[in-house]
Amino acid sequence: MGIRVAVAGASGYAGGELLRLLAGHPEFDLVTATAHSQAGQPLDAVHPQLVGLEMTFAETVPDVLAEADLVFLALPHGQSAALAAQLPAGVRIVDLGADHRLADASAWADYYGGPHAGAWTYGLPELPGQRTRIAAATRVANTGCYAATIILALAPLIAAGAAAPDDVVVVAASGTSGAGRAAKTHLLASEVMGDLSPYKVGAHQHVPEIKQASGATGLSFTPVLAPMPRGILATVTARPTGTVDPRAVLARAYADDPFVHVLPEGRWPHTAATLGGNSCHLQATVDVDSGRLIVVAALDNLGKGAAGQAVQNANLMFGLPETTGLSPLGVTP
Amino acid sequence: MGIRVAVAGASGYAGGELLRLLAGHPEFDLVTATAHSQAGQPLDAVHPQLVGLEMTFAETVPDVLAEADLVFLALPHGQSAALAAQLPAGVRIVDLGADHRLADASAWADYYGGPHAGAWTYGLPELPGQRTRIAAATRVANTGCYAATIILALAPLIAAGAAAPDDVVVVAASGTSGAGRAAKTHLLASEVMGDLSPYKVGAHQHVPEIKQASGATGLSFTPVLAPMPRGILATVTARPTGTVDPRAVLARAYADDPFVHVLPEGRWPHTAATLGGNSCHLQATVDVDSGRLIVVAALDNLGKGAAGQAVQNANLMFGLPETTGLSPLGVTP
Amino acid sequence: MGIRVAVAGASGYAGGELLRLLAGHPEFDLVTATAHSQAGQPLDAVHPQLVGLEMTFAETVPDVLAEADLVFLALPHGQSAALAAQLPAGVRIVDLGADHRLADASAWADYYGGPHAGAWTYGLPELPGQRTRIAAATRVANTGCYAATIILALAPLIAAGAAAPDDVVVVAASGTSGAGRAAKTHLLASEVMGDLSPYKVGAHQHVPEIKQASGATGLSFTPVLAPMPRGILATVTARPTGTVDPRAVLARAYADDPFVHVLPEGRWPHTAATLGGNSCHLQATVDVDSGRLIVVAALDNLGKGAAGQAVQNANLMFGLPETTGLSPLGVTP
Amino acid sequence: MGIRVAVAGASGYAGGELLRLLAGHPEFDLVTATAHSQAGQPLDAVHPQLVGLEMTFAETVPDVLAEADLVFLALPHGQSAALAAQLPAGVRIVDLGADHRLADASAWADYYGGPHAGAWTYGLPELPGQRTRIAAATRVANTGCYAATIILALAPLIAAGAAAPDDVVVVAASGTSGAGRAAKTHLLASEVMGDLSPYKVGAHQHVPEIKQASGATGLSFTPVLAPMPRGILATVTARPTGTVDPRAVLARAYADDPFVHVLPEGRWPHTAATLGGNSCHLQATVDVDSGRLIVVAALDNLGKGAAGQAVQNANLMFGLPETTGLSPLGVTP
Repeated sequence: MGIRVAVAGASGYAGGELLRLLAGHPEFDLVTATAHSQAGQPLDAVHPQLVGLEMTFAETVPDVLAEADLVFLALPHGQSAALAAQLPAGVRIVDLGADHRLADASAWADYYGGPHAGAWTYGLPELPGQRTRIAAATRVANTGCYAATIILALAPLIAAGAAAPDDVVVVAASGTSGAGRAAKTHLLASEVMGDLSPYKVGAHQHVPEIKQASGATGLSFTPVLAPMPRGILATVTARPTGTVDPRAVLARAYADDPFVHVLPEGRWPHTAATLGGNSCHLQATVDVDSGRLIVVAALDNLGKGAAGQAVQNANLMFGLPETTGLSPLGVTP
Repeated sequence: MGIRVAVAGASGYAGGELLRLLAGHPEFDLVTATAHSQAGQPLDAVHPQLVGLEMTFAETVPDVLAEADLVFLALPHGQSAALAAQLPAGVRIVDLGADHRLADASAWADYYGGPHAGAWTYGLPELPGQRTRIAAATRVANTGCYAATIILALAPLIAAGAAAPDDVVVVAASGTSGAGRAAKTHLLASEVMGDLSPYKVGAHQHVPEIKQASGATGLSFTPVLAPMPRGILATVTARPTGTVDPRAVLARAYADDPFVHVLPEGRWPHTAATLGGNSCHLQATVDVDSGRLIVVAALDNLGKGAAGQAVQNANLMFGLPETTGLSPLGVTP
Repeated sequence: MGIRVAVAGASGYAGGELLRLLAGHPEFDLVTATAHSQAGQPLDAVHPQLVGLEMTFAETVPDVLAEADLVFLALPHGQSAALAAQLPAGVRIVDLGADHRLADASAWADYYGGPHAGAWTYGLPELPGQRTRIAAATRVANTGCYAATIILALAPLIAAGAAAPDDVVVVAASGTSGAGRAAKTHLLASEVMGDLSPYKVGAHQHVPEIKQASGATGLSFTPVLAPMPRGILATVTARPTGTVDPRAVLARAYADDPFVHVLPEGRWPHTAATLGGNSCHLQATVDVDSGRLIVVAALDNLGKGAAGQAVQNANLMFGLPETTGLSPLGVTP
Repeated sequence: MGIRVAVAGASGYAGGELLRLLAGHPEFDLVTATAHSQAGQPLDAVHPQLVGLEMTFAETVPDVLAEADLVFLALPHGQSAALAAQLPAGVRIVDLGADHRLADASAWADYYGGPHAGAWTYGLPELPGQRTRIAAATRVANTGCYAATIILALAPLIAAGAAAPDDVVVVAASGTSGAGRAAKTHLLASEVMGDLSPYKVGAHQHVPEIKQASGATGLSFTPVLAPMPRGILATVTARPTGTVDPRAVLARAYADDPFVHVLPEGRWPHTAATLGGNSCHLQATVDVDSGRLIVVAALDNLGKGAAGQAVQNANLMFGLPETTGLSPLGVTP
């Protein structure tokens, strides 16, 4: 018997992707998947792509989860803190929600509201020193999907003194699965297909998370909903603080990372190439006209932006090779 | 008999949209549509949406075009100058290509190459004083589709002294029809669906046009190909130079314009709402974290970005009401 | 002042398309648009494509509608009968719902349930003799969108004795707007994009309507939801009862119809060519291997399948040219 | 060192999917990937989703391929026979092209033309007795993607005497990757998105293959191009020859097959659930009105319809468990 794993909130899109990854993981054994309104349903009635997985959704209650060695929380933002507080200290937890990401209680209050649950170890292994902290942690806060994309593009440039942290401008577009599975009119296929629509312009809740982990001090972030199921493409620009080659800085920073790929010169990231894989693709240049640094990052919001990242973190927490059960390869076209 | 109209290069996407608009125009009578490789084909064999239009593509030669009162040139960039030079002075021409947009010969050389044909009257009626110039012109250079979107978002803010012209950052995504109808692998549906891909990052040929007409002096512009047939969404940010409300500036600038709509507060432009119409939607705010001005603009790249704009310019050139044969309403969903 | 028009249930997709068509109609003047939960909202808050239409949704109550000369009912199936019964006899009504389509009360009971409201004049002008009946009617039941597509493909072949009526097999795929605007999980963009899904296999409520109007006596109809906002493509097959050319039969039947186009040989209908227009495209052949007749029909489910058809019917009811305010041209790409 | 594998024609879509599957296969070691015009390019320049695979495309010449234990031919139809003839008898070959599928030389001549290369063992392991034949073969002809879908839906019903073989009607829609990667105008994203288009109506080259393997004697097959990258949905109808439950027949036929899933009653196959997996989903019913049997089948044309199937066949040819390196799970949404 391997490591016993439970997934709470497994009826959503990130939950479904987690179940898929766990089904192919050689060390993690799924013992429980819980859901709220769909408790009692077979997994593949809710996730028809998981055909043949013989299991039924349980209720999301602490007792069921407490028997696992590892619990993934894939609940709506604001719901994981209360549940996590009821789980034994010995159970390792990766929270895919936002509850434990922010160290700054006032930022939490501004953007999410409600009581601040306190920060856990931040689950982005590619940040300097972070692998060690994750490996030592029993509680890890997985990154947000936008945040992961933008931080991976930006953090090394600020850390290297190549980019000014005070005037970062980001426009990032996401596929619809990032908005979740709740039935909302503006997420209907009829509304989304053929459409690009910005949202939360001027004030997005991911801004404090991005600043906290990237070192940015001034950030304009505009998110856009794009007509595709998965994928985030972030265009990140910043003023340079010297004459360094931004691509070289990124290539150095991620030279040993199996899941962050700085593409060869002349090739730019695009989302389809990351679909289904645990991989972030990066490329950078200096804008001819403005002199700004431009970094483009792409990843699968359900992969390296959520479920893949969560498995990567869990691998570290259990001392497994970081790549266990994960592939950087995308499913394209 | 109304005004006799010819369309050169009518087998492409902008050409097809022009033919559709002309079919519903009460004063313009299509007498000739020309094409290159598809000369001799019925219009609706090439444009199956134009079912029932009884006409055959002619060869693109000056003699045929010279008999019209009005010629639209919808040719690939670099091909209209030579043809236009062979048409009589009395024929009014709207060029949808780039050949006559740039006043600066060196910018033309840098981004397009080949001899510079010289600038014609710039066909964006919403710029201050431009309606009068267009009405007096016999030669008008229609805007580029990206350029129209970005200039409409930006020019009033710079003109009003509300936005700093030297540090403008734009990320704009376009539907695929903006890339034309030539068969290229990267434009195949299998490649594009589910994908967002940036291109010409760091140096795009529309930069000089945007700067020339908007007043921007420093511009970082990143274009992205989006998985939809039509539509451009531009996110334009600039540092403020005071404390003005950017939405109010735009609303004032476009108060009398029938085809530019500053949306009510709280509603943001999105591309689907502009599909098939001759309309640009705008909204603006001040970013909470960075203080930057953010303007979002949406239009149909084949409508207000190309064919609709061209008809609007032609209306002015013939002293017709600007809205003749045009509607701002979109075809949605 | 022209003919005063009201649209009840104008917040849905068919309602929005009706409002768009009415805005360009030279004889029909929109005086009232009603909605249920969105009463009090501006039209363009609900339909952002209708930018600039200055009107607010009223409550859907008989008093408001009774003041119009012409009322379009674009309500959910089962809701129009009660409302129609409260409107004065002198008001002309086109019902876009299913309530008054079926002559057979037991078929109504089997597929829809609830009391049968009785049949109105069937609103498909291209059926033999139907134009005259519609012109004389004050109450017209607009066709269903699938039904219109399939009937136009099939009825002339059965009427001409070319196709056996007892073994018709239809597979038809529809864009998502045909499923309405209610927020349902299976209609989310994340579920629909990249997906083809059959539904109501083996028993669809449109079967009796199709049989009633086409002459089919045995019909296997499988509908499929397709990843596009609009459009229906129906593949209709039947055993031949002789050696006639099915295309010739269709061409003869629709020779004088402005909105049904039998394409030239070798060209097959596809949905994009019909988007936004009031047009049904048809083509037919005999299958080499099986000898079956195959007819393919395409139309825009919101155009010739709903709102366009409704305006066409209303034109006839008011003695206007059938094509008033309507175009067969599509908006493509 | 495991089994040495070469892929010829690996620059196309099926080739790319094969490379992805081989990268995760524990026994097959990719030693060579060949391409025509892209020889010399890194794999991930052509297939950006295969990021990090360090290999360069070789020329497609026999010498290179002859060193492998197993060769997959993923060449355009008509090109594999000549190449295969030059490979040593001891090399096992799976041909993903059509060259060796048909036993009937005249059917080959009618639909493909050119010399008939002769039939190889047909690579659909789920047909009765076929696993044993594949395991014993050194040459296997992989199925066509449409053919696999339709045969899996139909063959057990005809074999069981439940469906009449002489009047089968099929409408099947495919994602665009089934049409290959060559740049053609009608496959451009601008043409395909929002569009359903039938093609080869009345005479499709897959008809003889479907008849040969399913037992059908009369088949009307209409293929439709759908706006999605992957997936085939086939609606297969036939007259019943008794009163059997078609679902029960299928469930019995595939009870032991790991990659064919007859869904629980009430759930219908849809393509997205099969994306990226090696799986065919089936459901069946009897049509209420016509009495026809209706079977719906879905699979990923690049998965169980091509590359996944090829690996499944190769597993059998090398005595490996049939499921080695393959998963039935889909990547959804």
